Parts: sequence; structure tokens; C-alpha cells
Amino acid sequence: MSDLDNSLEWLAALKWDADGMIPAIAQDQNGRVVMFAYMNRESLQETIACGNAVYWSRSRKRLWRKGEESGHFQKVKAIRTDCDGDVLLLSIEQVGGIACHTGRESCFFNELNGDRWVAVDQVLKDPKEIYK
Amino acid sequence: MSDLDNSLEWLAALKWDADGMIPAIAQDQNGRVVMFAYMNRESLQETIACGNAVYWSRSRKRLWRKGEESGHFQKVKAIRTDCDGDVLLLSIEQVGGIACHTGRESCFFNELNGDRWVAVDQVLKDPKEIYK
Repeated sequence: MSDLDNSLEWLAALKWDADGMIPAIAQDQNGRVVMFAYMNRESLQETIACGNAVYWSRSRKRLWRKGEESGHFQKVKAIRTDCDGDVLLLSIEQVGGIACHTGRESCFFNELNGDRWVAVDQVLKDPKEIYK
Repeated sequence: MSDLDNSLEWLAALKWDADGMIPAIAQDQNGRVVMFAYMNRESLQETIACGNAVYWSRSRKRLWRKGEESGHFQKVKAIRTDCDGDVLLLSIEQVGGIACHTGRESCFFNELNGDRWVAVDQVLKDPKEIYK
């Protein structure tokens, strides 16, 4: 991807952290916050170029083309940033209605109930069926 | 706040970063993502104790009791974490309907339009009127 122009003004307007990352929140067509991940410049540019969300996997240290294994791509409809320009909010259409690797609609399925985290959302599809 | 018990299990279950922080997304009663900030253990415990969102201001290096100057408190209705336990999602009721210091409903008011960021949301109240 060395042909990408990293000096683009809209890209430079964002505040990238010391590791060249920016946090990204994905909100689906139902208004549900389904995921939180990080992007680097390259992943954001590829997101815009291809129309599907591409993150940077900090654990695997590589581009993470969301849905590449599961088929659960995220079609990006709009991208916003906040007043500080240091966070992204993606409006996405979640293919398959499942964003989480656990087979749930959203990664945010644990709710604090008193002093315990409780998984309050249903698994829609067995991960074994998603990742075969 | 030295009387707070930082060994609480639900608190220890979260993945705090090297600086003792966890990102927090605030979503209002309309489903709108209105803010993104960080919490440390103390701010999360105070949030739960008082019922209003308390963040950690990384720039001011102190607890940030959201609304302390503006009156735009965030009443926390529910707290979720994701599958990795390294992000929080707060369901909040935004007092005054304004979360952003610019006087807008949400901090996420800049939308990418081609190669430009465009402020697409209205200012609901002049910041001079909010911070007097």
C-alpha cells in the first residue's frame, strides 16, 4: 500500500496517537454500538477505498479486514470524528447481523449487574459455524 | 478516595491499559454516540457510586466530573463492556441534551464528505452561555 498518499489533508487533520493509531467505534444500522477497535492511516484509507471497515489488529500487528474469515463484513456508510479529531465513529451496515467473534450482534454484551458482569445478549450463531 | 477498594473482582476483570485507563463510549437515550473519553479505576468507581459519569482527563490529569462546569451531567443508566473487557459502553441520559463543549448534542459532529471534514450538526447553545 506504499502508493497511498499519507499527506492527505483530511487524514492529517486527525490526531493519531504515538503509535499512529486512532480509536474507532462502529455503530450499526440499528443504532447499536457493535465494536471498538483501532485504525492506522493505512487501514482508514483502505476502508474508504474499499467501502468495508478495515482495522489494525494490535495483537496480530497487521491489517484486520473485518469479515475476512467470518464473512461478517461491515459496509461503511459514513465516517465521523469528534470535536478533538482523535476518535472515529463509523456508521456501518453489519453483514450477517453479527459483529462479535462470539456470534453475538455486538461485542458489548456484558452488562454490569451489581458487582458482576453478566452476558445479557444471545449468541445468534455458534462460532464453530462462523469460523470453519 | 483512598477508601475505595481497588481489588473488587468486577473491576479487576476489566483490562486496564499500561496507564491504568480504559476507553469509555457514552451513548445517549436517543441511541446517539455523544462522547468518547477515558476512565481510570477511581473514576469508574465514583461513576457507579454517584450515578453520574466521571472520566479521567488525561490532559488535566485529574478526575473529570462531566457537567461540573456546564451542568450537562450524564446520568448513567447501564454500563457494558465488550468481549475483551477492554472498553466500556455507558448508556446515559444526557442532561440538557448537550454533550459537547461546542454546544452540540454530540462530540461526533464532523462528517467526512469526500476529502473534507464537515461540521454537520447544529450548535444548540452558545458555549459562552454554557461556560460563564
